Amino acid sequence: MQKTFHCRISTTSERVCVFGTGDMGRSLGLRLLQAGYGVVFGSRRPHSSSSLIPHGAQVLGHAAASQSAHLIFIAVQREHYDFLVPLANQLKGKVLVDLSNNLRKNQYPEANAEYLQSLVPGAEVVKGFNTLSAWSLQNGPSDANRQVYICGESVEAKQAVIAVAIKLGFSALDQGFLSVARELEDFPLQLFPQWRLPLRIAIGLSAAFFFYLLIRDIIYAYVTQSKDISFRIMVSLANKVCPIVSLIMLSLCYLPGVLASFLQLYRGTKYRRFPDWLDRWMLCRKQLGLLALGFAFLHVLYTLIIPIRYYVRFKATEQNRTTQFDTTTAWRGDSYLSLGILGFGLYVLLGITSLPSVINTLSWREFSFIQSKLGHLTLLLCTAHTYLYGWNRFLSSSTYKWYTPPGYMLCLVLPSVVLLLKLLLITPCVDRTITRIRQGWERGADQRNPKDSQPLIP
Amino acid sequence: MQKTFHCRISTTSERVCVFGTGDMGRSLGLRLLQAGYGVVFGSRRPHSSSSLIPHGAQVLGHAAASQSAHLIFIAVQREHYDFLVPLANQLKGKVLVDLSNNLRKNQYPEANAEYLQSLVPGAEVVKGFNTLSAWSLQNGPSDANRQVYICGESVEAKQAVIAVAIKLGFSALDQGFLSVARELEDFPLQLFPQWRLPLRIAIGLSAAFFFYLLIRDIIYAYVTQSKDISFRIMVSLANKVCPIVSLIMLSLCYLPGVLASFLQLYRGTKYRRFPDWLDRWMLCRKQLGLLALGFAFLHVLYTLIIPIRYYVRFKATEQNRTTQFDTTTAWRGDSYLSLGILGFGLYVLLGITSLPSVINTLSWREFSFIQSKLGHLTLLLCTAHTYLYGWNRFLSSSTYKWYTPPGYMLCLVLPSVVLLLKLLLITPCVDRTITRIRQGWERGADQRNPKDSQPLIP
Amino acid sequence: MQKTFHCRISTTSERVCVFGTGDMGRSLGLRLLQAGYGVVFGSRRPHSSSSLIPHGAQVLGHAAASQSAHLIFIAVQREHYDFLVPLANQLKGKVLVDLSNNLRKNQYPEANAEYLQSLVPGAEVVKGFNTLSAWSLQNGPSDANRQVYICGESVEAKQAVIAVAIKLGFSALDQGFLSVARELEDFPLQLFPQWRLPLRIAIGLSAAFFFYLLIRDIIYAYVTQSKDISFRIMVSLANKVCPIVSLIMLSLCYLPGVLASFLQLYRGTKYRRFPDWLDRWMLCRKQLGLLALGFAFLHVLYTLIIPIRYYVRFKATEQNRTTQFDTTTAWRGDSYLSLGILGFGLYVLLGITSLPSVINTLSWREFSFIQSKLGHLTLLLCTAHTYLYGWNRFLSSSTYKWYTPPGYMLCLVLPSVVLLLKLLLITPCVDRTITRIRQGWERGADQRNPKDSQPLIP
Repeated sequence: MQKTFHCRISTTSERVCVFGTGDMGRSLGLRLLQAGYGVVFGSRRPHSSSSLIPHGAQVLGHAAASQSAHLIFIAVQREHYDFLVPLANQLKGKVLVDLSNNLRKNQYPEANAEYLQSLVPGAEVVKGFNTLSAWSLQNGPSDANRQVYICGESVEAKQAVIAVAIKLGFSALDQGFLSVARELEDFPLQLFPQWRLPLRIAIGLSAAFFFYLLIRDIIYAYVTQSKDISFRIMVSLANKVCPIVSLIMLSLCYLPGVLASFLQLYRGTKYRRFPDWLDRWMLCRKQLGLLALGFAFLHVLYTLIIPIRYYVRFKATEQNRTTQFDTTTAWRGDSYLSLGILGFGLYVLLGITSLPSVINTLSWREFSFIQSKLGHLTLLLCTAHTYLYGWNRFLSSSTYKWYTPPGYMLCLVLPSVVLLLKLLLITPCVDRTITRIRQGWERGADQRNPKDSQPLIP
Repeated sequence: MQKTFHCRISTTSERVCVFGTGDMGRSLGLRLLQAGYGVVFGSRRPHSSSSLIPHGAQVLGHAAASQSAHLIFIAVQREHYDFLVPLANQLKGKVLVDLSNNLRKNQYPEANAEYLQSLVPGAEVVKGFNTLSAWSLQNGPSDANRQVYICGESVEAKQAVIAVAIKLGFSALDQGFLSVARELEDFPLQLFPQWRLPLRIAIGLSAAFFFYLLIRDIIYAYVTQSKDISFRIMVSLANKVCPIVSLIMLSLCYLPGVLASFLQLYRGTKYRRFPDWLDRWMLCRKQLGLLALGFAFLHVLYTLIIPIRYYVRFKATEQNRTTQFDTTTAWRGDSYLSLGILGFGLYVLLGITSLPSVINTLSWREFSFIQSKLGHLTLLLCTAHTYLYGWNRFLSSSTYKWYTPPGYMLCLVLPSVVLLLKLLLITPCVDRTITRIRQGWERGADQRNPKDSQPLIP
Repeated sequence: MQKTFHCRISTTSERVCVFGTGDMGRSLGLRLLQAGYGVVFGSRRPHSSSSLIPHGAQVLGHAAASQSAHLIFIAVQREHYDFLVPLANQLKGKVLVDLSNNLRKNQYPEANAEYLQSLVPGAEVVKGFNTLSAWSLQNGPSDANRQVYICGESVEAKQAVIAVAIKLGFSALDQGFLSVARELEDFPLQLFPQWRLPLRIAIGLSAAFFFYLLIRDIIYAYVTQSKDISFRIMVSLANKVCPIVSLIMLSLCYLPGVLASFLQLYRGTKYRRFPDWLDRWMLCRKQLGLLALGFAFLHVLYTLIIPIRYYVRFKATEQNRTTQFDTTTAWRGDSYLSLGILGFGLYVLLGITSLPSVINTLSWREFSFIQSKLGHLTLLLCTAHTYLYGWNRFLSSSTYKWYTPPGYMLCLVLPSVVLLLKLLLITPCVDRTITRIRQGWERGADQRNPKDSQPLIP
């Protein structure tokens, strides 16, 4: 115990060792110097390296360098780790921080940090700092990732490394034992893992509706009336695909929550896990919603530039006034636009409250009020906006070119289902049951003593 | 002292106990296991509970479980706390973390944590973690609230709990003594307390101006000309209410600051507290400003869809060119639009710099530059935008239907007053006095020795 | 060692002393009391001060107060520091926290904290908390800057101050030795140092293009056709300046990265520092990009209000249909608008991912994917948007009024160059070389043993 504490404080005023004088090693050394540490570099050729290293640091051979500090950063590529084997004795009891990354996933059978531990069994290996780039180390943790993830077997060793991280201005997060090292090493290689499924859904839906509408609008006009209106692809068609995909994505964002409620209602308990597909779906709701917002944003822009279009301006001058002013049409048109605006306003509000720093200022109840109550209201407004857009065209047979329904009709199916199910859930009798289930009540469990198996948060 | 330190480190590698195998208890236990703790659950029926608990944890009876750890999380509802009374002896000296929440405010006469302390006087009760949901515990502190609030009498006990919180990836904030527990227990129940007053003002203003304009525009046309233009409610009326409310809210956001300056000027000192109403008003300036931005955003959207409206397109074809092109009108119209755009641009900039994560990157001087200088500039641009909108209609008697001024005239009163007062404040002689007051100077206090009562930050 | 630990814990349950009962001192004292500290104010006239100080604190003379605590906050202006000289003996070994700020840069030859240290050489001076205002201290670190910066010679003293900062709800960042104090004292006085250069570029470009276009458009029409179209300044001219400046700023944001790659390619190594101007340029890329986004946002608003303008509505009614509908023009117009919309959508995405809290959730690879890949795609879309806007007017001699090219042609030069250079960089053979260089390969260095001088992160 005493020892740990000692090392934790003393590292600050004492020396830290860095093996490797490459980019990463030098950047780290510079930052350590700035934070007030003494830095000793370990190098194979100390004399030729000394010109490269930051001013104020020392360069020694590996063995000599390792003697000067309790904590040693290994800023060397994994392929060269074998130089550590002959040093195993000197490194006994030292804390070795493995900074290494790989160029691709599953490059090696085991994690670099585990390999390092196997080479120097007497040392206490801690994986960490590998999610930082040399650039962000040099320039401080102002803009780039401030978080540092570490893992390792020894609590004392991790404490010492956390202390250094904090001194350097990072906040360190202990991720557990060394077996997590592979995950940490994969982290810098990952590219939006949570966005993949939602992005694929968005692209798939966009492509499907694009071709559907291409056939119904452009090709239909060409085949039946020999008119070339292919120029409409760029704006008119895009402005149909965007709102359709946005509305479907938004209902996909709220569907899993509704399904989960019905599942709990059916099972009569909340203590059974959801099926895996539902769990995974629920975890990507945020991404689905944000993509929906992106498509809605494009829809708004595409709509607003309509009057500037050459085609529209040309039409306007051509148009002859043949009809009387129709108040119903005016009502319908203005309501349709107004609902769209209000829906988009709420949409943007949902987007803003998805920003990490805004979420952090919200209590749990506030967050769920916005994301659930306002979210369903947004869905309601956007769905009503689409229904008003369709208006009485649902009944006219000329709408169904080649016996196919128009895109906006297809995209209304899912949100209507979600809203109907949600309506069922908020009817008083169902709502009462679901609230009791969420507070821990279990159907058919009343005879059991539920004393300490009850949850605390509804 | 030694003991504290000992417990702080040793908890990490040792065991933590969780009483209660409900939702919250199990989620917490799982997270503790992932962070490398040994976890022992305390349950009334250890055998029947063991199937539910996360893999790797142990279940024992309450008495046996409490012996295995120094830190015990009480994940049981308050109604069942009495089972702890017979354990009082075993719990002596232990740290008990009260996780409980209530279903509504003032459900019980005293805070749950204080009640717990009264039941087990020998233990050191710490309130904490109750602002987290079981969901956010299970899924880690990535998206939901990362902050954990704790309070308690014993510094050592709180240190131990903070250490656990940090290990679990949360950042812990010590809020003081156990008397704060009630506040912490109310926190998850609160719903935008700071937004209530500004929201009520916004709704009140919207309703008032809606009915005022409904009478002046729609009903007036119906009564005097028997024309039904009720369809204008959806867009035209909304597009009058939004900018009016936005401008008034924005001036309400800057008025208290100006009033405070005049109060300091009148009193000749800054060392007297502002009246309570002014303090409360100043604390909700941010919310007033953000709501104003929301209304401005809707105003922009409502304005931009004007040319798409059926009514406007119908009018356009009907219109006969009767007038000559008027350069003054062109100047006025374009200036009016341009000021509106620049004002909205600054508005959005103010909104972005209100995001918590952006504020954190600004120095105090930068923050006040944006929120004060740019804020007043925004108000100036928006007010000028409205004046140009009115233009010479202020003088025409036909503007005053039923002897009432139009909405945009009414909404100009407050911003004009704020801008005039601000103008007074930045005249050199007044500015000099206010600056001296803010630097600690007091009128009539020159004979006193102001040595160590002077402030440091202007 | 033991002593340090002792003071770190004991300060929490014990007393802290504050010298000075001004604004700052009282605010700090109040906050310390709320966090559970005992607070003793040191004042020259303890009896007259006692009415001002927060309830629960004590006021004593300086000498008596200093005896009651190990940690003393000096909330007094620098001019009055001399009262500390006679107390030098009592202050020996105490931790003195210098909170002071100056009214302007370089007000004194040395930092206030260094001056304080010279007056009381036996004490351990720590600079800190000076970036906070009294206001943010009173109202807690919720909205204003949560970060506290400290520096000082003694590690133990800094640890004690960090512990207090954490208790008060701030996160403390150790910036190094006392020599950094001057920098910390200058911090509250700084006003967007990183934004200066980009802002100057933006203003310079705006002014240059404004006058260029004023001459080409307004004055040319007046001179050659005696037409007064000066009203166009407000919207038409603004809507030319905004997109031009935006596109140039965006290419200025991506040019330094491309130049750096070519420099590395030419040098055959990445281990030589970039020239200073390139380094400085690269550090303000974010600001350049965000300003470009601001101008693009204004351009979008200016474009969207076009159909509402009096001039445009007047023209529309005047217009006689003389031409046939031209599908090519429709294609060109719609593509131009569509590219602009998509470009702006990506632009906004880049802006959102520049928010500090969003950056923190991205891995390094994700961040560079967005800022580099999507950034260059944005530049490509916006450049194509501008080329389509020009269309065949590049070839028509009437475009070149007074032999000058129009603004959109001038602004295409830089983005075209950047895109061409980038295209060169991503051709397979060049890309292979640059990737090897970034992984640490050096041209002509193969004979050397590169073992431990290799970087770890590509």
